[in-house]
This record gives sequence, structure tokens and C-alpha cells, in this order.
Amino acid sequence: MLLRRRAQAFRLPMAAPDDASALVALIKGGDLDPAHIVAILGKTEGNGCVNDFTRGFAVMALRAALGRWLAPSALDRVAMVMSGGTEGAIAPHMLVLAARPAADRAAPGPALALGCVVTRDLAPEEIGRPAQIALAAEGVRAAMADAGIGAAADVHFAQIKAPLLTMEQIARGGTAAGDTLKSMGLSRGAAALGVGVALGEIAQSAAMAAAVGADPSLWSARASCSAGVELRGMEIVVMGMSDAWAGPLRIDHAVMADGLDIDPVRAALRRLGARFDGQLPPAEAARVCAVLAKAEAPRSGQVRGWRHTMLDDSDIAATRHARAFAAGALAAQTGHAALFVSGGAEHQGPDGGGPCAILYDASSRDQE
Amino acid sequence: MLLRRRAQAFRLPMAAPDDASALVALIKGGDLDPAHIVAILGKTEGNGCVNDFTRGFAVMALRAALGRWLAPSALDRVAMVMSGGTEGAIAPHMLVLAARPAADRAAPGPALALGCVVTRDLAPEEIGRPAQIALAAEGVRAAMADAGIGAAADVHFAQIKAPLLTMEQIARGGTAAGDTLKSMGLSRGAAALGVGVALGEIAQSAAMAAAVGADPSLWSARASCSAGVELRGMEIVVMGMSDAWAGPLRIDHAVMADGLDIDPVRAALRRLGARFDGQLPPAEAARVCAVLAKAEAPRSGQVRGWRHTMLDDSDIAATRHARAFAAGALAAQTGHAALFVSGGAEHQGPDGGGPCAILYDASSRDQE
Amino acid sequence: MLLRRRAQAFRLPMAAPDDASALVALIKGGDLDPAHIVAILGKTEGNGCVNDFTRGFAVMALRAALGRWLAPSALDRVAMVMSGGTEGAIAPHMLVLAARPAADRAAPGPALALGCVVTRDLAPEEIGRPAQIALAAEGVRAAMADAGIGAAADVHFAQIKAPLLTMEQIARGGTAAGDTLKSMGLSRGAAALGVGVALGEIAQSAAMAAAVGADPSLWSARASCSAGVELRGMEIVVMGMSDAWAGPLRIDHAVMADGLDIDPVRAALRRLGARFDGQLPPAEAARVCAVLAKAEAPRSGQVRGWRHTMLDDSDIAATRHARAFAAGALAAQTGHAALFVSGGAEHQGPDGGGPCAILYDASSRDQE
Amino acid sequence: MLLRRRAQAFRLPMAAPDDASALVALIKGGDLDPAHIVAILGKTEGNGCVNDFTRGFAVMALRAALGRWLAPSALDRVAMVMSGGTEGAIAPHMLVLAARPAADRAAPGPALALGCVVTRDLAPEEIGRPAQIALAAEGVRAAMADAGIGAAADVHFAQIKAPLLTMEQIARGGTAAGDTLKSMGLSRGAAALGVGVALGEIAQSAAMAAAVGADPSLWSARASCSAGVELRGMEIVVMGMSDAWAGPLRIDHAVMADGLDIDPVRAALRRLGARFDGQLPPAEAARVCAVLAKAEAPRSGQVRGWRHTMLDDSDIAATRHARAFAAGALAAQTGHAALFVSGGAEHQGPDGGGPCAILYDASSRDQE
Repeated sequence: MLLRRRAQAFRLPMAAPDDASALVALIKGGDLDPAHIVAILGKTEGNGCVNDFTRGFAVMALRAALGRWLAPSALDRVAMVMSGGTEGAIAPHMLVLAARPAADRAAPGPALALGCVVTRDLAPEEIGRPAQIALAAEGVRAAMADAGIGAAADVHFAQIKAPLLTMEQIARGGTAAGDTLKSMGLSRGAAALGVGVALGEIAQSAAMAAAVGADPSLWSARASCSAGVELRGMEIVVMGMSDAWAGPLRIDHAVMADGLDIDPVRAALRRLGARFDGQLPPAEAARVCAVLAKAEAPRSGQVRGWRHTMLDDSDIAATRHARAFAAGALAAQTGHAALFVSGGAEHQGPDGGGPCAILYDASSRDQE
Repeated sequence: MLLRRRAQAFRLPMAAPDDASALVALIKGGDLDPAHIVAILGKTEGNGCVNDFTRGFAVMALRAALGRWLAPSALDRVAMVMSGGTEGAIAPHMLVLAARPAADRAAPGPALALGCVVTRDLAPEEIGRPAQIALAAEGVRAAMADAGIGAAADVHFAQIKAPLLTMEQIARGGTAAGDTLKSMGLSRGAAALGVGVALGEIAQSAAMAAAVGADPSLWSARASCSAGVELRGMEIVVMGMSDAWAGPLRIDHAVMADGLDIDPVRAALRRLGARFDGQLPPAEAARVCAVLAKAEAPRSGQVRGWRHTMLDDSDIAATRHARAFAAGALAAQTGHAALFVSGGAEHQGPDGGGPCAILYDASSRDQE
Repeated sequence: MLLRRRAQAFRLPMAAPDDASALVALIKGGDLDPAHIVAILGKTEGNGCVNDFTRGFAVMALRAALGRWLAPSALDRVAMVMSGGTEGAIAPHMLVLAARPAADRAAPGPALALGCVVTRDLAPEEIGRPAQIALAAEGVRAAMADAGIGAAADVHFAQIKAPLLTMEQIARGGTAAGDTLKSMGLSRGAAALGVGVALGEIAQSAAMAAAVGADPSLWSARASCSAGVELRGMEIVVMGMSDAWAGPLRIDHAVMADGLDIDPVRAALRRLGARFDGQLPPAEAARVCAVLAKAEAPRSGQVRGWRHTMLDDSDIAATRHARAFAAGALAAQTGHAALFVSGGAEHQGPDGGGPCAILYDASSRDQE
Repeated sequence: MLLRRRAQAFRLPMAAPDDASALVALIKGGDLDPAHIVAILGKTEGNGCVNDFTRGFAVMALRAALGRWLAPSALDRVAMVMSGGTEGAIAPHMLVLAARPAADRAAPGPALALGCVVTRDLAPEEIGRPAQIALAAEGVRAAMADAGIGAAADVHFAQIKAPLLTMEQIARGGTAAGDTLKSMGLSRGAAALGVGVALGEIAQSAAMAAAVGADPSLWSARASCSAGVELRGMEIVVMGMSDAWAGPLRIDHAVMADGLDIDPVRAALRRLGARFDGQLPPAEAARVCAVLAKAEAPRSGQVRGWRHTMLDDSDIAATRHARAFAAGALAAQTGHAALFVSGGAEHQGPDGGGPCAILYDASSRDQE
């Protein structure tokens, strides 16, 4: 019989982008073996757009902190997916995902399964084009294999951090985007199309023929993609349910049709076992280990028939508006704002909406 | 027997700050007699801070549009309370509140009652100081009398639009604030203390002795105050329940402890008669004529124990973050984002939270 | 002998976008006959980008103020070109340009000549495309005729205010740009290509074949174009030197290779008769009636071999950075910051630079 | 006879806040001995306000890069003064200042002298108060001694990087400022008063009695202070002229009365030996090793009698406007924008203006 694994998820506060003290304390306290870390997803407090250096700063600090325990090659295997933008009351925080061997006596699965892959570097001219789509699809499949998830239907979340184009690369020519902000959207969109292909949500031929970002009817219900200046390849983390994993952690997902579409999230919470009327009561809120959602401004210029101004605002980027708003909707449900809401949902959920995955601790309620 | 009045409430879209076309169409269509208009509350798409000229632009356009029907003196009696800031998906819109004679056969009240007063101009050195508090309290009492509301407990919402200090006035000296943005907070705070005094929520002695903005334990559960460069006096609109009014409109209010505190709002909706599990279904959403809420960033730097970054953000004003976030929370409940969420809640609700009033159409469900 | 005209230029402060009080005072004081006004160019204090409503607010206020003296049809003939963005120390102000009959005894010209035309409305699908280029060229020629300027070489400045696309128009499809901010650039660029064609700086075939904004080697040395949501046609003001005009006002222009390229401006000032070593001394500064310049961020990502960050900044639009910087360079020369520096210089001067026109009062120095 | 020192100054480009590659190349190329580094002053591309993490990121990267050659204790002796904000065309860059032994045959001085001190940590309640003023004055005197500068008149520049208050510290109470942005101003102001005391520009009694920031008539002509979240003590770098130093580098300073007051800078350049009419020609520009200036928005709301909008802008911090504008003025003179212009000039130069120091290479012109 194969040794099963057991996932761990820790949500840790960050007092600044370079604050890894909670992680260090967790390790020193013996609750986490640094060698078990699979991925770290962080919400850092930059603008989440082009000149957001909080992401790179956080990665530099995390590598320095974990460097006490892990060799550089081991560090390279930990996906560090920093997503900038803590608009509204979103709390800067990190989700540390780890995998340790399950106890022999562990109950049968399925349980939360984690897989992680870092792809080769992308050339500037590949960003936002079919080469990136194909590489993302290949990476998702590799991450599924790493997670021991056989069926695409058991994947509930595929997070990809992808590179963007710098002004320097754009000036050299041959790239898909003429400005850096736009390149972020193309890179996110191509990665999401790749997820959709890998998970069977989008026909490969349609994805490869698509002008990235042009056709909002092509979307994945489980892709979450961000772009940052601090990496060249793609970091892919896949989460799902698998019999190869044990433990109390579960995952499910919903698709929000727009930033205020909370009922599908309520349904997912109930499928996971949560009991609530309005907002989650504290005991239930404590079971929600993570909420990972995408937010974006509808291109139609409208939400539920009313005009929004996110796309006409030259002072605040639309992604910032969208994150703050969707975070409010989700926080009203979950009871706090330590939410991994990221912006720029090209091909990730329907136009103006986005996927929302929930990690839930389904431990027995006996002690309650 | 005294003639009773009947309140009307129209929520109208705005394609731009100077777009009064929906109002003009309403009047031309015969659904609204311009002479019945008591107040117009607008959410306009500026930054809601000092250099937000969308408020003044909207007022200029509204006066020009209504000038076809109303003489300047009649226009002066209409409170035009523009609140800037449509962050997140908040829809630029206006609430037109009107009062017409009730039909003889109208059912007995109580029903939504409206009162409106414009105070004398404030001197720059009065802004944010006891003189403004006293003037606001006096104005609220006058507006209650105008509305025919006898008991303070029957007031559910008191909206005050107050002036701010300009750099020029500050440079002349003798004012309470050293910069314009700060003066907005002091002016809102003093107005709110005045509401609290008038409604018996704050002892007059405590309010008059208070350093405005310093003691967050002094607050009104029904005050909503904003400040703008486009006026010198205070425009006060009071809403409540009164037997002197008839018709299907009702009002109730909740106090949100923070921007995501949605359960008190759910309770208020249910008190008003709404039936729902999660988000309001469309038929219920259509009954909600208006949602008027305040939002602000908690000074503690935390929301539910997690750090927020609103007060440390030098790129986006905290009021803008807070409005977007609270609007998300409320929209997830009400089903759309045509919400009158305004920022800067000094002495309006507890620190980091704010009052939320709901106008509801309790017409018989027979036709449903 | 034909009656000659004499140009007047007034630079007036604005305390807010809707402040026309200095203009009203000028008229009431008898220094300006409102019937003589040809154009009003204003720098208003919005962001100068899509959601800048200060431009429309200023126009509404100017029309209301001048409406005391001018009939609507006369008002429609006054070009009101508001340009948003008073970054750095740029002073909100307006330039009022007027033309009155010259005295019989006036010295022979040439002198500053003014011409003004408003084109037909543009359809959304024409914006940023050859139809707009052709219409702009036709309009510039008509404005030259209006000004009595025969030779293109005598034109020193052609200001065009053009429309932009709204989200609503973009959503309907068929337009050249996918977002509103981008449409501003395309509209400015097409207008500038039209100026270049009319003035013989750009071959008509090259302009009509150009993808607007794509080839920075196509530029006019005298075009200054802005875009705003408040108009549908193009307002064109041409300034140059003509024997048909008398009086002490003169105009000349320079081309700045980048935002700090002040030596060509110094040369133009000296051609106009100014005497100075460093900054203009007060007596010379008083002779400079207007400085009209364009500013933009070089696409290369560099200024004089050093990296700039304007195009990578997701918090502040590049146009805002560029205006503030070029205004500093020009103000250091002219001795004050009441400068008409506008952003977005597509096809207006070389990439990263822009035209700069100077109006100068060359009255005899006898009284000095 | 004492061994004399010789100062070195290198201006190096930065492709990102964490880019130390030019410094590493300089060291590897043998042009700089890392043990000689006295201070590194960097302009990094954040907002220069509270949530500017580019400063800390740059310091972390510099320490990592220099860590190959210097032990932690040696690193701690290098002042790393990062100043955020590269508005307009300001180039992200660093100035590396070093001191090596002078050759025996070196010509007699005086020449540029460098001194550097790091003070003890400040308690949160000391920031912006007399304790900080006194500590700054003491530190400047110590840095003068370190530089071998005997007379205060020979000091031309005193750069202090000081801490600010975080929301957390403010929430604990007892601090001088109620928000983080304001604490930056108080910390800069107290440090500048300390410089003024040490250099004999401000009477000690007046400085200690002053409410920091309140009286703009108290100022130093040679102080340049910034505040950042990444340090607790003050880093002080003093530059001046001393016979104890040899080599071709010189320093002089000017005081700009406002952001466009370029004539005092021209006079200082001429005192240093530069020859020019308008902008510095390339050969002269190459001799200017560094320009270090402060910029701020005049509190009067006016520049040269015209209104500015910097202090009324709720979208862009006044410091950002002021830096972009003053950088334009200076760049027009120096011929490039690799300028160390920092914002927030409380007690540093007159209200609305600031000191400007210039490092100049006065090598013989024989080879020209």
C-alpha cells in the first residue's frame, strides 16, 4: 500500500511584505516541518499591478527566513505565489501549504491534495500567446500528477503565477503587449486558458486559436492566475481531492457570476459541511482555512444592470476596485477579511466574475 | 383632520455627474411632480475627498434641469446632498425623495416621513467646533418638526452635508484643521455629534466638551454626514416613521460594527418584512428602495483581529478603500450595488463601522 | 483696405473649475468685450484622464457666466478647450483669446492672428482613424482661413480638443480602442496627424496609412491635442502670425526633444525679444502672455540614457508625471507655473517631447 | 602629517529596487573597494510615503550584494539612505560615496569630505519631539568629526534618514502624530531642526521650544531629511569641504525659495566652476556627480502668486507633485534627471522651497 499524505494549511499574518516571523515561529514551535512546505501563497500590500515590488520583497524575505532550514535547491521547489493588493480590509497574510506523511491509522480519503510545479522560463515573445497556453496546460497536468489527482473533475483550484513584460522587453519589440499593465492581463489570460485546456473546460483547439483576452466566453471555473515582475517561468499549484491523501482538510469551489454573487459560495460552504444563516458564526469561520477568489470589473460597464465606474477610473486601477468590492462580499459571508482575493480574472470565470475555492477543516464536531 | 403626506422614493441612474436625464424623464412621464421633491441624494463618481468636483457639477446640472419647473427659491428648498465616491461596483445614482398629499383613503400610518432643513452658513472658524455641533443639533430638530416626527426614537436616518475648509481659509488662520482633508473629517464629526445630541444618543455636555474626532465612543446610530467644498451651510435631511405620513414606504436602520458586519442589516431587512436566505431574491431586492450606509477604516488598524492597510496607504485614501469594501458586503446582501455608501464615519456608528438605513416598499404581496 | 484685427490675450486665475469670476470682472471692468472672445483655453484641476469632469464643469460654468452677454449661438462659436491636469505647481487658469478691430493708426503687422473652427461630430467608429485625421486637417485649414493666415509656415500652434470613447460606446463594438484611456491617445494622435497634414509636416498619404500612435516618427511641431468626454466634434484653434493683424502680440514656437529640453524654448524666447540669463526676470516674465506645451513620457523608457518609471507606474498615469516634470522645466525658465502644459503628445513633437508655443507682448520698451 | 582621504562618488542606475548589479560590477571591475564605502543614497521607485516598501527592499538587496565582501558589522557602518519617489522623469539610481586614502602627491585641499553616523534607536514617543531634535544635533556633530570638518560653515549637506510611526505604534498611544503620513513629516522636521542647531542656523532654545512643523521660519539651508518604515534610529551623512581631504571633488549648496527657483542653483554651479548659458552642455553635465535637493508644496497654496493644487489633491500626495515639479526645474538645468530630489522639506529651507547641494568634479580641463 502506498504511503498516503496529509495536507496542512496555515493562515499567517504579515506585518509587512518582508515579515516572515509568524512562519518562523510556526516552524520553531514544531507545528510545521519546513521540509514539508509545498507552496506559500501570499497577499502582499502593494498595488497588485506593474510596479508592485512587495511581491518580490516578500519572496526575498521568505527565502532568507527559510534558508535557515532549507538548501537553495529545496527552496526552489517551494512555490511562492505572491499576489499584490490588499484593498478594502483585505489582510496581508500568507497561506502555507504543506504535505506530511499521513498516519497509518488515518481515515480513508479523499482529502485535500496538493501538487506543485515550476515551468521553464518563458521568452518575452511567448507571453500571452499559444506557447504560454500550452506550457500552462502541460504544467497543470504535471502538478495533478504530483498531487496524485487522477481526474480533472477532482481539481478545485489551479493557481498560476506567471511573468509579465517589462518596458525594456516591450521596447525591444516582438511582444504581444505594448504596455506592461496590458501584458499582465495577457499573461494571466494565457495561463488561465492553459488551465481550462488541462481540466477539459476549454477545447484545446479553441484555446490555441483564441486571441488571449478577446473572447470572454472561454473560461475556467478553477483557474486563478496572477502575474508579477519577479519571475520568468510559471509557478503552478494545483489543489483538489484525492484518495491518496488523508486528514480533515477538504476543498470545493464555486463560480461567482460577478463580485457580489455570494449564493454559489454559500452553497459550496454548505456542501463542505458548514452550518450558518447569515455570516459564518465564529466556530464555522475558524474551520474555513482559506478562501481563494478572483475578482474583476465586468467589461460591459455594468453590474446587475447598474453602471460601475471601475473601468473609467484613471486614478485607481480597475483590479484594485474589483478586489476591494469582492473581498467585502466574501468577508460578509466568512466573517473576516484574511482572504486571498486576487484581481485580473481574464478567462478565469465569466466576464466580471471569477472562481472561488474554499479550504475547509471538516474535523469531527464532537468537541464542539 | 390634518392632511397626511405620502413619501415617494426614486432611485435613478446617472451616466455622468451632470446627467439629470432620468430625473427629467420621470417628471415628463408624470410620475413625479417636481414641486414635491424634498431632497436629492446622489452618489457621484469623484474621489469623495477634497478635490472632488463631481458633487458641485451634479448640483449645477440638477439645478439647471429642475430650473425648467422650479423657481430659484423653490430650488433652494430642495436639499441636494451629493456624496462622492463610487468605489468598487457602486453605481453612480441619485435618490429622489418627494412628498405628495396622501389620498383620503390611505391606510393609517405610520409610514416613511421626510424632513429637510438648510442651516445658515458656517464661518470657517466654526467648522469642526462646538458652534457646528450646536447648529447641527438645532437643524436636526427643525427637520424632525418639518417631517412631523415627534419622538427621537422614530428617526432612523439623519443625513447632513456640511462644508469643509479650503487651503485659502486655512492659510488665513484660526481654523480647527491644518489641511483640507482633515477638515472634512472634523466637519463630518461635528455634524454627527449634533445629530447624536438631537436624537438623545449623546449627552449635550459630552458632545460640546468633546474634541471632535478624538473620542470614538461618542457616536450616533443614525447620523450620516459628508462634507463638500460646494456649500457653506449644512443641508439636513431627516427620515423616520410618522403617523402623519401614509403609503407603503418604511424605514429601519442597523448599526454595522465594521464594514463586513452584515447580520444587523439582515435583521433590519427581516424587521421590514423581507424574506430571504442568502442574497435577496430579485422580487425582494426590488422592494429595497434605498440603502444608506457609512463606511470607514477602523483606527485600530485591525478588522476582526487581522491587520488592514487602509490607513497606511498613501496611494488611495482610506475612505475610498472603506466604501468599496462595505459596498461589497452590502451588495452581496441586497443583490445590486446602487447603494448610497459614503465614507468618513466620524462619530457615526462605532469606530470602523457605521449606521445603515434601509428604505423598503412594504406594498401588499397580493400581486406576487 | 481691409480692416485689420488686433488679438488680445488674458491669463486669468481660477479658484475652482467653475470659477469664472476673473473673466466676469474683466468684462465688467471694460477691458474685454465678450463679443470679441474667440477662444478660452483652460487648465483645470482634474486628472486630465478619462474621469476628469473638471473640464465639463468649467465649460458649463463659463457658458453660464458668458450667457449674461452672449446668446447661445454666439457661445457656440467660442472654442472652449479645457485641458485637465495641474500636476506639480501648475496653476489652474484660463487663457482668454479675443480679437477686436485694430485702430486705424496701428503699426503694420505681422502680429498674432487667431482662427477658430468647430467641426461636425465624430461617430465613435471614426475616432482614432483616417476619418478623424482628414476632418482635423480640413478643420485646421478652415481655421487658418478664419485667422487670415495664408502660409502654413506662419502657423505656430494648432490646438485641437477632440472627443474620446466611453465604455458604453466601446461595449457597442466597432471602435478603434478597447478602453477609454487608450481612446484618448488615439483621438489625440489622429487629430495631430491631421494638423501635420494641414501644415505640410506629414505627407497626407503617410498620415492616412498610419496606424495612429504606432509610428512616432510622424509628428507635427505645432500640434497640441487633447481629448475629453464633454464634446463630440473637434474644437480647433489656430494661432500664427499674419499681416492682417496688428498690435504688440507675437507668437513663436519651439520643439522640445524631451521634457527637460529647455534650450529650444530659450532660443524662441530670444527670437521673440526676451532678454535674460537664467530665469526670466519679472519684467520679461510679464511679457510672456502664454506658454502652451505638450508633455509625454518617452516610450523608450529612458530620458537622456537614464531609466524613467512613468510608464511602469500603476498608481499615477504617465501623462500626470510628464506634465508635472515638463512644467517644472518650463517654469524654471519662465518664472511662474501658470503654464498650459497638457499631456498625451501622440504625433505632437518627437516621442517623449513636444511642441511649445509662446505668446509674447513685444510692446515698446520705452516705458521701462 | 595626517594621512588625508579622498572621496569617491559613483552614480549608478537601478533597474528595480533590488538591483545592485551596477554596484557589483563596479566592485568587480576594481573601481571601488567595498571597504571604502561610506554611504549609499538611493532614489527608489515607490511612492515615497508610508507604504513605500521599495526602500526596505533596496536595503535588503544591497546588504545581500555587499555581503559577499563585507561582514555584517562592516555593513552596519555603511549608511544606506533610500529615498522613495521617482516622479516625473527622475531616474531610479544610487549614489555610492566612498573614502579611500589620498595619494601622497595629492594637491592640497580643501576637497569633498564625508562623515557618517548611525544614532541609537528612537522610542516611538520621541519621534517628532525635542528628544529627536537633540539626538539629531548630536549626530550631526559626530558626523562632522567623522568627516574632519571643523567649522559648521564648511558643511554643505546633512542627510538624515529617520524612522516614522506605524499605525500599530500610534494605536498604542503617546505618540506625537495620529497618522503615519503625518508622523513622517514630524520625524523629518525634528531631524532638520537638529541639523539647524548643529550648524548654528537655528538657536537651540528656539528649536527645542518649537512645535515641530509649526513655524516655517525655522529652517536649515543644508538639511535633507527623509523618513522610512525600515529603520528605528537615524542614519546621518554629512558632506562638506575639508583640508583633510584631497582629490577633484567639490561641494557647494544653494537654497531654492520654491520648486522653480533655479537661479541660486545656477550661481552655485558657477561657483563650482561650471560654464554654461542655458542647460549644462554634456561635458559640464558629466562633471556634476550628484544633485541633492528637497522639494515641497508651499503651505500658502500659492507659487509666485498663482494657486497650486498640490495640497488639495486627494489622489496624489503633495510630496509626489513637489518632487516631480522640482525635478523638472533642476533637470532642465543639469541636463538629465538622475537627481536625488526628495520630498517633505519641513524645516529644510523656506516654506515651499528647499536646499540643493551639488557635488562637482573640478578635475583640470586640460584634457578637454
